[in-house]
Amino acid sequence: MQRVGFTFRIKPELKDEYKKAHDNIWPEMAEAIRKCGIHNYSIYFKPDGTLFACLEVEGDYQKQMAELSRTDVNKRWQEYMDRFFVKEDKSVTGPEIETLEEVFHLD
Amino acid sequence: MQRVGFTFRIKPELKDEYKKAHDNIWPEMAEAIRKCGIHNYSIYFKPDGTLFACLEVEGDYQKQMAELSRTDVNKRWQEYMDRFFVKEDKSVTGPEIETLEEVFHLD
Repeated sequence: MQRVGFTFRIKPELKDEYKKAHDNIWPEMAEAIRKCGIHNYSIYFKPDGTLFACLEVEGDYQKQMAELSRTDVNKRWQEYMDRFFVKEDKSVTGPEIETLEEVFHLD
Repeated sequence: MQRVGFTFRIKPELKDEYKKAHDNIWPEMAEAIRKCGIHNYSIYFKPDGTLFACLEVEGDYQKQMAELSRTDVNKRWQEYMDRFFVKEDKSVTGPEIETLEEVFHLD
């Protein structure tokens, strides 16, 4: 099991809508995430629009994420989410993710 | 069980030292954290010095943190950490913490 933390940005004024969309995540999207071995996945909001995500994944994170990104449902979800994201590079599909280094862990 | 995410800041140039200190956390400090019902506690570093922390806690987070902050070992640990922190309000003991709102969770 691998732990992963990453950050990306949304337009802060759209936070309530973003949360609502995630409260009502499509069952097939949740299923696709789980199928890629991802669990205990939380996203936290900072009022400046920064989102901080942490998750646990079985197997190799990069490989599992590549697999997830190839699914049809993920492509549709990212299109649905696109108007929330703040990105430097608009050509990026989905959020512009910055992976973070874990500097501490206590089981 | 409650999940909590929060953020605080350190001087980015001191990251390696901060990580080293946490790789070698005092056993009595780790024990004090566990005694307060805190587990699965990770801290992630963003290159601008922002730290993101996420943890799980049994019982009430505010109460458990208040309990932890009263321990002698925690006071000594925060003094030891003090030079790493970036704070607007220097009178704050320990890191200047901003609690984050969870906008998504998938078990």
